[in-house]
Amino acid sequence: MTTQQLIDQIKIKKSFLAVGLDVDLNKIPPHLLELEDPIFEFNKAIIDATHDLAVAYKPNTAFYEAYGIKGWMSLQKTINYINSTYPDIFTIADAKRGDIGNTSSMYAKAFFEDLNFDSVTVAPYMGKDSVEPFLAFENKHTIMLALTSNEGAFDFQTLNVDGKELYKQVLETSKTWKNSENLMYVVGATKAEYFTEIRKIVPDSFLLVPGVGAQGGSLAEVCKYGMNANVGLLINSSRAIIYASNGTDFVEKAREEALKMQQEMEAILNDIKPN
Amino acid sequence: MTTQQLIDQIKIKKSFLAVGLDVDLNKIPPHLLELEDPIFEFNKAIIDATHDLAVAYKPNTAFYEAYGIKGWMSLQKTINYINSTYPDIFTIADAKRGDIGNTSSMYAKAFFEDLNFDSVTVAPYMGKDSVEPFLAFENKHTIMLALTSNEGAFDFQTLNVDGKELYKQVLETSKTWKNSENLMYVVGATKAEYFTEIRKIVPDSFLLVPGVGAQGGSLAEVCKYGMNANVGLLINSSRAIIYASNGTDFVEKAREEALKMQQEMEAILNDIKPN
Repeated sequence: MTTQQLIDQIKIKKSFLAVGLDVDLNKIPPHLLELEDPIFEFNKAIIDATHDLAVAYKPNTAFYEAYGIKGWMSLQKTINYINSTYPDIFTIADAKRGDIGNTSSMYAKAFFEDLNFDSVTVAPYMGKDSVEPFLAFENKHTIMLALTSNEGAFDFQTLNVDGKELYKQVLETSKTWKNSENLMYVVGATKAEYFTEIRKIVPDSFLLVPGVGAQGGSLAEVCKYGMNANVGLLINSSRAIIYASNGTDFVEKAREEALKMQQEMEAILNDIKPN
Repeated sequence: MTTQQLIDQIKIKKSFLAVGLDVDLNKIPPHLLELEDPIFEFNKAIIDATHDLAVAYKPNTAFYEAYGIKGWMSLQKTINYINSTYPDIFTIADAKRGDIGNTSSMYAKAFFEDLNFDSVTVAPYMGKDSVEPFLAFENKHTIMLALTSNEGAFDFQTLNVDGKELYKQVLETSKTWKNSENLMYVVGATKAEYFTEIRKIVPDSFLLVPGVGAQGGSLAEVCKYGMNANVGLLINSSRAIIYASNGTDFVEKAREEALKMQQEMEAILNDIKPN
Protein backbone atom coordinates (compact mmCIF):
# COMPACT_ATOMS: atom_id res chain seq x y z
CA MET A 1 0.00 0.00 0.00
CA THR A 2 1.26 3.49 -0.81
CA THR A 3 1.28 6.27 1.76
CA GLN A 4 -1.29 8.12 -0.35
CA GLN A 5 -3.63 5.12 -0.24
CA LEU A 6 -3.34 5.10 3.54
CA ILE A 7 -4.13 8.82 3.68
CA ASP A 8 -7.13 8.25 1.41
CA GLN A 9 -8.44 5.53 3.70
CA ILE A 10 -8.11 7.83 6.70
CA LYS A 11 -10.20 10.45 4.91
CA ILE A 12 -12.82 7.94 3.75
CA LYS A 13 -13.24 6.28 7.14
CA LYS A 14 -12.66 9.44 9.19
CA SER A 15 -10.45 7.29 11.34
CA PHE A 16 -6.76 6.79 12.01
CA LEU A 17 -7.27 3.86 14.31
CA ALA A 18 -5.01 0.83 14.30
CA VAL A 19 -6.30 -2.16 16.24
CA GLY A 20 -3.63 -4.21 17.96
CA LEU A 21 -4.25 -7.94 17.62
CA ASP A 22 -2.33 -9.10 20.71
CA VAL A 23 -4.15 -12.33 21.35
CA ASP A 24 -3.59 -14.01 24.69
CA LEU A 25 -5.47 -17.31 25.08
CA ASN A 26 -5.93 -16.51 28.78
CA LYS A 27 -7.87 -13.36 27.95
CA ILE A 28 -10.14 -14.26 25.04
CA PRO A 29 -13.70 -15.51 25.57
CA PRO A 30 -13.48 -19.10 26.86
CA HIS A 31 -16.08 -20.39 24.41
CA LEU A 32 -13.60 -19.77 21.57
CA LEU A 33 -11.09 -22.20 23.06
CA GLU A 34 -13.14 -25.13 21.79
CA LEU A 35 -12.51 -24.11 18.19
CA GLU A 36 -9.62 -25.50 16.17
CA ASP A 37 -7.81 -22.16 15.84
CA PRO A 38 -9.09 -19.89 18.62
CA ILE A 39 -6.54 -17.13 17.86
CA PHE A 40 -7.56 -16.82 14.23
CA GLU A 41 -11.28 -17.10 15.04
CA PHE A 42 -10.91 -14.35 17.64
CA ASN A 43 -9.04 -12.12 15.18
CA LYS A 44 -11.52 -12.78 12.39
CA ALA A 45 -14.44 -11.83 14.64
CA ILE A 46 -12.69 -8.65 15.84
CA ILE A 47 -11.71 -7.67 12.29
CA ASP A 48 -15.17 -8.30 10.87
CA ALA A 49 -16.68 -6.17 13.64
CA THR A 50 -14.29 -3.23 13.32
CA HIS A 51 -12.95 -3.09 9.75
CA ASP A 52 -15.04 -0.05 8.83
CA LEU A 53 -13.84 1.85 11.90
CA ALA A 54 -10.13 1.07 11.69
CA VAL A 55 -7.60 1.78 8.95
CA ALA A 56 -4.98 -0.66 10.23
CA TYR A 57 -4.48 -3.89 12.15
CA LYS A 58 -1.34 -4.59 14.07
CA PRO A 59 -0.66 -8.14 15.26
CA ASN A 60 2.28 -8.21 17.66
CA THR A 61 4.37 -11.23 16.68
CA ALA A 62 5.23 -12.10 20.31
CA PHE A 63 1.69 -13.25 20.96
CA TYR A 64 1.86 -15.67 18.03
CA GLU A 65 5.40 -16.96 18.58
CA ALA A 66 4.47 -17.81 22.16
CA TYR A 67 2.23 -20.55 20.74
CA GLY A 68 4.89 -21.97 18.44
CA ILE A 69 4.02 -23.29 15.02
CA LYS A 70 0.28 -23.13 15.77
CA GLY A 71 0.69 -19.47 16.64
CA TRP A 72 2.65 -18.73 13.48
CA MET A 73 -0.12 -20.43 11.48
CA SER A 74 -2.71 -18.24 13.20
CA LEU A 75 -0.66 -15.17 12.25
CA GLN A 76 -0.47 -16.29 8.63
CA LYS A 77 -4.20 -17.01 8.48
CA THR A 78 -4.91 -13.61 10.03
CA ILE A 79 -2.84 -11.60 7.56
CA ASN A 80 -4.18 -13.66 4.64
CA TYR A 81 -7.72 -13.02 5.83
CA ILE A 82 -7.16 -9.26 6.03
CA ASN A 83 -5.39 -9.08 2.67
CA SER A 84 -8.04 -11.09 0.86
CA THR A 85 -11.16 -9.73 2.58
CA TYR A 86 -10.27 -6.12 3.35
CA PRO A 87 -7.51 -5.15 0.90
CA ASP A 88 -7.82 -1.45 1.81
CA ILE A 89 -6.60 -2.13 5.35
CA PHE A 90 -3.01 -1.18 6.22
CA THR A 91 -1.29 -4.07 7.97
CA ILE A 92 1.48 -3.77 10.53
CA ALA A 93 3.65 -6.64 11.75
CA ASP A 94 4.69 -5.40 15.17
CA ALA A 95 7.89 -7.41 15.31
CA LYS A 96 10.56 -4.91 16.40
CA ARG A 97 13.21 -6.71 14.38
CA GLY A 98 16.73 -5.64 13.51
CA ASP A 99 20.01 -7.41 12.79
CA ILE A 100 23.10 -7.10 10.61
CA GLY A 101 22.39 -6.38 6.96
CA ASN A 102 22.11 -9.82 5.37
CA THR A 103 20.02 -10.99 8.32
CA SER A 104 17.68 -8.01 8.27
CA SER A 105 17.10 -8.83 4.60
CA MET A 106 15.75 -12.20 5.71
CA TYR A 107 13.39 -10.52 8.18
CA ALA A 108 12.22 -8.14 5.46
CA LYS A 109 11.56 -11.14 3.23
CA ALA A 110 9.63 -12.83 6.05
CA PHE A 111 7.28 -9.93 6.69
CA PHE A 112 7.03 -8.18 3.32
CA GLU A 113 7.11 -11.20 1.00
CA ASP A 114 6.22 -14.40 2.83
CA LEU A 115 3.52 -12.88 5.05
CA ASN A 116 2.82 -9.87 2.81
CA PHE A 117 2.40 -7.22 5.50
CA ASP A 118 2.38 -3.56 4.42
CA SER A 119 4.74 -2.62 7.22
CA VAL A 120 6.92 -3.93 10.01
CA THR A 121 8.27 -2.34 13.18
CA VAL A 122 12.06 -2.33 13.65
CA ALA A 123 14.49 -1.43 16.44
CA PRO A 124 17.20 1.19 15.79
CA TYR A 125 20.05 0.08 18.06
CA MET A 126 22.10 -1.64 15.33
CA GLY A 127 21.94 1.38 13.02
CA LYS A 128 21.79 2.03 9.31
CA ASP A 129 22.62 -1.34 7.79
CA SER A 130 20.14 -3.07 10.11
CA VAL A 131 17.25 -0.94 8.80
CA GLU A 132 18.07 -0.16 5.15
CA PRO A 133 17.31 -3.72 3.94
CA PHE A 134 13.69 -3.12 5.00
CA LEU A 135 13.58 0.27 3.27
CA ALA A 136 14.49 -1.26 -0.08
CA PHE A 137 10.97 -2.66 -0.55
CA GLU A 138 8.73 -0.47 -2.69
CA ASN A 139 5.36 0.46 -1.22
CA LYS A 140 6.30 -1.23 2.04
CA HIS A 141 6.82 0.75 5.23
CA THR A 142 9.34 0.40 7.99
CA ILE A 143 8.20 1.71 11.35
CA MET A 144 11.21 2.38 13.54
CA LEU A 145 11.10 2.71 17.31
CA ALA A 146 11.84 6.30 18.31
CA LEU A 147 10.22 6.99 21.69
CA THR A 148 8.28 4.09 23.15
CA SER A 149 5.36 4.14 25.58
CA ASN A 150 6.85 2.05 28.37
CA GLU A 151 8.67 3.08 31.53
CA GLY A 152 11.95 1.67 30.20
CA ALA A 153 11.86 4.30 27.42
CA PHE A 154 13.60 6.61 29.90
CA ASP A 155 16.52 4.22 30.43
CA PHE A 156 18.21 5.01 27.13
CA GLN A 157 15.92 6.80 24.65
CA THR A 158 15.92 10.08 26.52
CA LEU A 159 19.60 10.07 27.48
CA ASN A 160 21.45 13.21 26.50
CA VAL A 161 23.61 12.58 23.44
CA ASP A 162 25.77 15.58 22.60
CA GLY A 163 23.09 18.00 23.69
CA LYS A 164 19.98 16.22 22.49
CA GLU A 165 17.99 13.18 23.54
CA LEU A 166 18.93 9.88 21.90
CA TYR A 167 15.51 9.42 20.27
CA LYS A 168 15.94 12.75 18.48
CA GLN A 169 19.33 11.65 17.21
CA VAL A 170 17.76 8.40 16.04
CA LEU A 171 15.12 10.36 14.10
CA GLU A 172 17.66 12.72 12.56
CA THR A 173 20.15 10.05 11.57
CA SER A 174 17.46 7.86 10.02
CA LYS A 175 16.50 10.66 7.65
CA THR A 176 19.89 10.29 5.96
CA TRP A 177 19.37 6.61 5.13
CA LYS A 178 18.62 5.33 1.64
CA ASN A 179 14.88 5.20 0.87
CA SER A 180 14.14 6.97 4.16
CA GLU A 181 10.82 8.08 2.67
CA ASN A 182 9.65 4.56 3.53
CA LEU A 183 10.17 5.22 7.25
CA MET A 184 7.47 5.75 9.82
CA TYR A 185 8.16 5.98 13.56
CA VAL A 186 6.80 4.58 16.82
CA VAL A 187 6.13 7.37 19.30
CA GLY A 188 4.38 6.54 22.56
CA ALA A 189 1.22 8.44 23.49
CA THR A 190 2.13 8.60 27.13
CA LYS A 191 4.43 11.53 26.39
CA ALA A 192 2.28 13.86 24.27
CA GLU A 193 4.44 16.88 25.04
CA TYR A 194 7.28 15.30 23.07
CA PHE A 195 5.31 15.43 19.80
CA THR A 196 6.07 19.10 19.20
CA GLU A 197 9.79 18.38 19.23
CA ILE A 198 9.38 15.27 17.11
CA ARG A 199 7.39 17.13 14.45
CA LYS A 200 10.26 19.60 14.10
CA ILE A 201 12.46 16.70 12.98
CA VAL A 202 9.99 14.57 11.00
CA PRO A 203 7.14 16.89 9.99
CA ASP A 204 5.82 14.69 7.20
CA SER A 205 6.28 11.14 8.49
CA PHE A 206 3.54 8.93 9.79
CA LEU A 207 3.81 8.15 13.50
CA LEU A 208 2.45 4.93 14.96
CA VAL A 209 1.26 5.80 18.44
CA PRO A 210 0.77 3.07 21.03
CA GLY A 211 -0.21 3.81 24.59
CA VAL A 212 -3.68 5.28 24.08
CA GLY A 213 -6.22 3.32 26.10
CA ALA A 214 -4.94 0.66 28.47
CA GLN A 215 -1.58 2.42 28.79
CA GLY A 216 -3.25 5.75 29.64
CA GLY A 217 -2.37 8.22 26.86
CA SER A 218 -4.76 10.94 25.70
CA LEU A 219 -5.94 10.97 22.08
CA ALA A 220 -6.74 14.70 22.09
CA GLU A 221 -3.29 15.61 23.41
CA VAL A 222 -1.52 13.43 20.87
CA CYS A 223 -3.51 14.96 18.00
CA LYS A 224 -2.97 18.49 19.27
CA TYR A 225 0.80 18.15 19.14
CA GLY A 226 1.35 15.31 16.67
CA MET A 227 -1.03 15.73 13.72
CA ASN A 228 0.15 17.08 10.38
CA ALA A 229 -1.61 18.10 7.17
CA ASN A 230 -2.06 14.46 6.13
CA VAL A 231 -3.08 13.50 9.68
CA GLY A 232 0.22 11.59 9.91
CA LEU A 233 -0.87 9.53 12.88
CA LEU A 234 -1.92 5.94 13.39
CA ILE A 235 -3.27 5.56 16.89
CA ASN A 236 -3.04 2.02 18.16
CA SER A 237 -5.37 0.52 20.69
CA SER A 238 -5.10 -3.13 21.61
CA ARG A 239 -6.44 -4.29 24.95
CA ALA A 240 -9.10 -1.56 25.35
CA ILE A 241 -10.81 -2.81 22.19
CA ILE A 242 -10.12 -6.50 21.83
CA TYR A 243 -10.64 -7.33 25.52
CA ALA A 244 -13.60 -4.98 26.09
CA SER A 245 -15.49 -8.12 27.09
CA ASN A 246 -14.49 -11.74 27.42
CA GLY A 247 -18.07 -12.98 27.20
CA THR A 248 -20.13 -14.02 24.20
CA ASP A 249 -20.71 -10.31 23.55
CA PHE A 250 -17.00 -9.63 22.90
CA VAL A 251 -17.66 -8.71 19.26
CA GLU A 252 -20.28 -6.07 20.11
CA LYS A 253 -18.21 -4.64 22.95
CA ALA A 254 -15.11 -4.45 20.77
CA ARG A 255 -17.09 -2.61 18.12
CA GLU A 256 -18.48 -0.21 20.74
CA GLU A 257 -14.97 0.65 21.92
CA ALA A 258 -13.66 1.02 18.37
CA LEU A 259 -16.65 3.19 17.49
CA LYS A 260 -15.93 5.45 20.47
CA MET A 261 -12.37 5.88 19.26
CA GLN A 262 -13.47 6.47 15.65
CA GLN A 263 -16.05 9.06 16.69
CA GLU A 264 -13.51 10.87 18.81
CA MET A 265 -11.18 10.85 15.80
CA GLU A 266 -13.91 12.07 13.44
CA ALA A 267 -14.65 14.97 15.79
CA ILE A 268 -10.99 15.91 15.84
CA LEU A 269 -10.75 15.70 12.03
CA ASN A 270 -13.87 17.86 11.66
CA ASP A 271 -12.39 20.48 13.98
CA ILE A 272 -9.36 20.94 11.79
CA LYS A 273 -9.72 24.02 9.63
CA PRO A 274 -8.80 23.39 6.01
CA ASN A 275 -5.62 25.28 5.08
CA MET B 1 21.66 -24.94 31.60
CA THR B 2 23.50 -23.20 34.42
CA THR B 3 26.46 -20.93 33.79
CA GLN B 4 28.66 -23.42 35.65
CA GLN B 5 27.58 -26.22 33.32
CA LEU B 6 28.54 -24.06 30.36
CA ILE B 7 31.95 -23.36 31.93
CA ASP B 8 32.41 -27.09 32.55
CA GLN B 9 31.66 -27.86 28.91
CA ILE B 10 34.20 -25.28 27.79
CA LYS B 11 36.84 -26.99 29.94
CA ILE B 12 35.91 -30.49 28.78
CA LYS B 13 35.85 -29.61 25.09
CA LYS B 14 38.67 -27.05 25.24
CA SER B 15 36.43 -24.93 23.08
CA PHE B 16 34.27 -21.86 23.42
CA LEU B 17 32.94 -22.05 19.89
CA ALA B 18 29.33 -21.28 19.01
CA VAL B 19 28.26 -22.30 15.53
CA GLY B 20 25.72 -20.00 13.92
CA LEU B 21 23.02 -21.92 12.07
CA ASP B 22 22.00 -19.22 9.60
CA VAL B 23 20.63 -21.39 6.86
CA ASP B 24 20.01 -19.82 3.49
CA LEU B 25 18.54 -22.20 0.92
CA ASN B 26 20.53 -20.40 -1.78
CA LYS B 27 23.80 -21.29 -0.09
CA ILE B 28 23.42 -24.88 1.09
CA PRO B 29 24.50 -27.84 -1.05
CA PRO B 30 21.94 -28.20 -3.86
CA HIS B 31 21.57 -31.95 -3.36
CA LEU B 32 19.86 -31.25 0.00
CA LEU B 33 17.06 -29.30 -1.67
CA GLU B 34 15.47 -32.58 -2.79
CA LEU B 35 14.84 -33.59 0.82
CA GLU B 36 11.59 -32.81 2.60
CA ASP B 37 13.15 -30.42 5.12
CA PRO B 38 16.46 -29.22 3.67
CA ILE B 39 17.05 -26.68 6.47
CA PHE B 40 16.75 -29.26 9.23
CA GLU B 41 18.77 -31.87 7.31
CA PHE B 42 21.52 -29.32 6.76
CA ASN B 43 21.53 -28.35 10.44
CA LYS B 44 21.49 -31.97 11.60
CA ALA B 45 24.48 -32.80 9.39
CA ILE B 46 26.42 -29.74 10.59
CA ILE B 47 25.60 -30.45 14.24
CA ASP B 48 26.51 -34.14 14.00
CA ALA B 49 29.83 -33.19 12.42
CA THR B 50 30.80 -30.47 14.90
CA HIS B 51 29.09 -31.21 18.26
CA ASP B 52 32.33 -32.32 19.93
CA LEU B 53 34.12 -29.14 18.80
CA ALA B 54 31.46 -26.58 19.70
CA VAL B 55 29.82 -25.74 23.02
CA ALA B 56 26.91 -23.85 21.53
CA TYR B 57 24.67 -23.56 18.48
CA LYS B 58 23.03 -20.31 17.52
CA PRO B 59 20.23 -20.36 14.96
CA ASN B 60 19.32 -16.84 13.89
CA THR B 61 15.52 -16.69 13.75
CA ALA B 62 15.48 -14.44 10.66
CA PHE B 63 16.67 -17.30 8.47
CA TYR B 64 13.77 -19.48 9.62
CA GLU B 65 11.04 -16.84 9.61
CA ALA B 66 11.95 -16.01 6.00
CA TYR B 67 10.54 -19.44 5.06
CA GLY B 68 7.31 -18.97 6.99
CA ILE B 69 5.71 -21.89 8.80
CA LYS B 70 8.05 -24.38 7.15
CA GLY B 71 10.99 -22.38 8.46
CA TRP B 72 9.57 -22.21 11.96
CA MET B 73 9.10 -26.00 11.85
CA SER B 74 12.73 -26.43 10.80
CA LEU B 75 13.76 -24.27 13.76
CA GLN B 76 11.69 -26.35 16.15
CA LYS B 77 13.07 -29.62 14.77
CA THR B 78 16.60 -28.25 15.05
CA ILE B 79 16.32 -27.20 18.70
CA ASN B 80 14.53 -30.45 19.58
CA TYR B 81 17.29 -32.42 17.89
CA ILE B 82 20.01 -30.62 19.82
CA ASN B 83 18.20 -30.88 23.15
CA SER B 84 17.48 -34.58 22.77
CA THR B 85 20.72 -35.71 21.14
CA TYR B 86 23.33 -33.39 22.64
CA PRO B 87 21.89 -32.15 25.94
CA ASP B 88 25.24 -30.68 27.02
CA ILE B 89 25.12 -28.14 24.20
CA PHE B 90 24.24 -24.54 25.08
CA THR B 91 21.56 -23.24 22.71
CA ILE B 92 21.11 -19.63 21.65
CA ALA B 93 18.05 -18.26 19.85
CA ASP B 94 19.50 -15.25 18.05
CA ALA B 95 16.26 -13.34 17.89
CA LYS B 96 17.14 -9.81 19.13
CA ARG B 97 13.69 -9.39 20.62
CA GLY B 98 12.39 -6.71 22.97
CA ASP B 99 9.02 -5.08 23.61
CA ILE B 100 6.93 -3.65 26.45
CA GLY B 101 6.78 -5.85 29.54
CA ASN B 102 3.74 -8.05 28.93
CA THR B 103 4.82 -8.57 25.34
CA SER B 104 8.42 -9.44 26.21
CA SER B 105 6.96 -12.06 28.55
CA MET B 106 5.36 -13.69 25.52
CA TYR B 107 8.70 -13.70 23.69
CA ALA B 108 10.37 -15.24 26.74
CA LYS B 109 7.68 -17.92 26.78
CA ALA B 110 8.23 -18.56 23.06
CA PHE B 111 11.98 -19.10 23.32
CA PHE B 112 12.46 -20.45 26.85
CA GLU B 113 9.32 -22.59 27.17
CA ASP B 114 7.84 -23.43 23.79
CA LEU B 115 11.17 -23.91 21.96
CA ASN B 116 13.23 -24.59 25.11
CA PHE B 117 16.37 -22.65 24.20
CA ASP B 118 18.94 -22.00 26.93
CA SER B 119 19.27 -18.39 25.89
CA VAL B 120 17.92 -15.66 23.64
CA THR B 121 19.40 -12.44 22.33
CA VAL B 122 17.53 -9.20 23.11
CA ALA B 123 17.79 -5.55 22.07
CA PRO B 124 18.22 -2.86 24.76
CA TYR B 125 16.51 0.18 23.23
CA MET B 126 13.23 -0.18 25.18
CA GLY B 127 15.00 -0.48 28.53
CA LYS B 128 14.46 -2.28 31.80
CA ASP B 129 10.89 -3.54 31.53
CA SER B 130 11.57 -4.89 28.03
CA VAL B 131 14.38 -7.13 29.29
CA GLU B 132 13.44 -8.09 32.86
CA PRO B 133 10.68 -10.52 31.76
CA PHE B 134 13.41 -12.63 30.13
CA LEU B 135 15.62 -12.46 33.22
CA ALA B 136 12.91 -13.99 35.41
CA PHE B 137 13.54 -17.48 34.00
CA GLU B 138 15.81 -19.62 36.16
CA ASN B 139 18.81 -21.20 34.43
CA LYS B 140 17.96 -19.35 31.24
CA HIS B 141 20.22 -16.64 29.86
CA THR B 142 19.42 -13.34 28.22
CA ILE B 143 22.08 -12.08 25.86
CA MET B 144 21.69 -8.34 25.37
CA LEU B 145 23.15 -6.38 22.48
CA ALA B 146 25.89 -4.09 23.75
CA LEU B 147 28.31 -3.39 20.90
CA THR B 148 27.51 -5.15 17.65
CA SER B 149 29.84 -6.18 14.84
CA ASN B 150 28.23 -4.28 11.97
CA GLU B 151 29.02 -0.89 10.51
CA GLY B 152 25.77 0.55 11.87
CA ALA B 153 27.05 -0.05 15.41
CA PHE B 154 28.68 3.36 15.14
CA ASP B 155 25.41 5.13 14.37
CA PHE B 156 24.13 5.04 17.95
CA GLN B 157 26.00 2.55 20.15
CA THR B 158 29.17 4.62 20.33
CA LEU B 159 27.50 8.02 20.70
CA ASN B 160 28.69 10.03 23.65
CA VAL B 161 26.14 9.96 26.45
CA ASP B 162 27.11 12.23 29.31
CA GLY B 163 30.77 11.49 28.84
CA LYS B 164 30.65 7.82 27.96
CA GLU B 165 29.61 5.77 24.95
CA LEU B 166 26.02 4.56 24.86
CA TYR B 167 26.96 0.88 24.88
CA LYS B 168 28.82 1.40 28.17
CA GLN B 169 25.76 3.07 29.66
CA VAL B 170 23.68 0.12 28.44
CA LEU B 171 26.05 -2.29 30.19
CA GLU B 172 26.10 -0.29 33.43
CA THR B 173 22.35 0.26 33.59
CA SER B 174 21.59 -3.39 32.89
CA LYS B 175 23.60 -4.43 35.94
CA THR B 176 20.98 -2.75 38.16
CA TRP B 177 18.09 -4.81 36.76
CA LYS B 178 16.44 -7.63 38.67
CA ASN B 179 18.10 -11.02 38.08
CA SER B 180 20.88 -9.30 36.13
CA GLU B 181 23.08 -12.33 36.90
CA ASN B 182 21.18 -13.99 34.03
CA LEU B 183 22.56 -11.45 31.56
CA MET B 184 25.20 -12.08 28.94
CA TYR B 185 26.15 -9.53 26.27
CA VAL B 186 26.74 -9.41 22.54
CA VAL B 187 30.08 -7.73 21.77
CA GLY B 188 31.35 -7.71 18.19
CA ALA B 189 34.81 -9.11 17.47
CA THR B 190 35.56 -6.46 14.90
CA LYS B 191 36.41 -4.04 17.71
CA ALA B 192 38.76 -6.03 19.93
CA GLU B 193 40.22 -2.92 21.53
CA TYR B 194 36.86 -2.23 23.16
CA PHE B 195 37.01 -5.42 25.24
CA THR B 196 39.32 -3.89 27.86
CA GLU B 197 36.78 -1.17 28.60
CA ILE B 198 33.90 -3.63 28.57
CA ARG B 199 35.62 -5.95 31.03
CA LYS B 200 35.93 -3.04 33.48
CA ILE B 201 32.14 -2.84 33.55
CA VAL B 202 31.17 -6.53 33.29
CA PRO B 203 34.22 -8.52 34.43
CA ASP B 204 32.34 -11.74 35.13
CA SER B 205 29.69 -11.90 32.41
CA PHE B 206 29.79 -14.14 29.40
CA LEU B 207 30.17 -12.28 26.12
CA LEU B 208 28.79 -13.67 22.88
CA VAL B 209 31.17 -12.54 20.17
CA PRO B 210 30.07 -12.50 16.53
CA GLY B 211 32.26 -11.20 13.76
CA VAL B 212 35.10 -13.73 13.87
CA GLY B 213 35.54 -15.35 10.48
CA ALA B 214 33.45 -14.00 7.59
CA GLN B 215 33.17 -10.57 9.27
CA GLY B 216 36.94 -10.38 9.81
CA GLY B 217 37.56 -10.25 13.57
CA SER B 218 40.65 -11.83 15.18
CA LEU B 219 40.20 -14.62 17.74
CA ALA B 220 43.56 -13.99 19.39
CA GLU B 221 42.84 -10.30 19.84
CA VAL B 222 39.41 -10.92 21.31
CA CYS B 223 40.80 -13.46 23.79
CA LYS B 224 43.68 -11.19 24.76
CA TYR B 225 41.36 -8.40 25.82
CA GLY B 226 38.08 -10.18 26.52
CA MET B 227 38.79 -13.43 28.36
CA ASN B 228 38.20 -13.76 32.10
CA ALA B 229 39.00 -16.48 34.67
CA ASN B 230 36.05 -18.59 33.47
CA VAL B 231 36.90 -17.88 29.84
CA GLY B 232 33.71 -15.80 29.67
CA LEU B 233 33.55 -15.83 25.90
CA LEU B 234 31.45 -17.60 23.33
CA ILE B 235 32.92 -16.99 19.90
CA ASN B 236 30.39 -17.34 17.14
CA SER B 237 31.22 -18.39 13.64
CA SER B 238 28.48 -18.93 11.10
CA ARG B 239 29.29 -18.66 7.42
CA ALA B 240 32.98 -19.62 7.68
CA ILE B 241 31.95 -23.02 9.07
CA ILE B 242 28.57 -23.90 7.66
CA TYR B 243 29.31 -22.70 4.13
CA ALA B 244 32.90 -23.96 3.98
CA SER B 245 31.75 -26.00 1.00
CA ASN B 246 28.46 -26.26 -0.82
CA GLY B 247 29.31 -29.61 -2.37
CA THR B 248 28.69 -33.13 -1.13
CA ASP B 249 31.74 -32.68 1.13
CA PHE B 250 30.10 -29.85 3.13
CA VAL B 251 30.08 -31.92 6.31
CA GLU B 252 33.80 -32.69 6.19
CA LYS B 253 34.69 -29.10 5.27
CA ALA B 254 32.52 -27.70 8.06
CA ARG B 255 34.23 -30.03 10.53
CA GLU B 256 37.66 -28.97 9.24
CA GLU B 257 36.82 -25.30 9.80
CA ALA B 258 35.33 -25.97 13.24
CA LEU B 259 38.36 -28.05 14.16
CA LYS B 260 40.69 -25.19 13.16
CA MET B 261 38.75 -22.86 15.43
CA GLN B 262 38.70 -25.39 18.28
CA GLN B 263 42.44 -26.03 18.00
CA GLU B 264 43.16 -22.30 18.01
CA MET B 265 40.98 -22.03 21.12
CA GLU B 266 42.69 -24.99 22.80
CA ALA B 267 46.08 -23.41 22.17
CA ILE B 268 44.88 -20.16 23.74
CA LEU B 269 43.44 -22.00 26.75
CA ASN B 270 46.70 -23.94 27.22
CA ASP B 271 48.68 -20.69 27.15
CA ILE B 272 46.76 -19.26 30.08
CA LYS B 273 48.75 -19.63 33.27
CA PRO B 274 46.70 -21.00 36.17
CA ASN B 275 46.22 -18.36 38.86
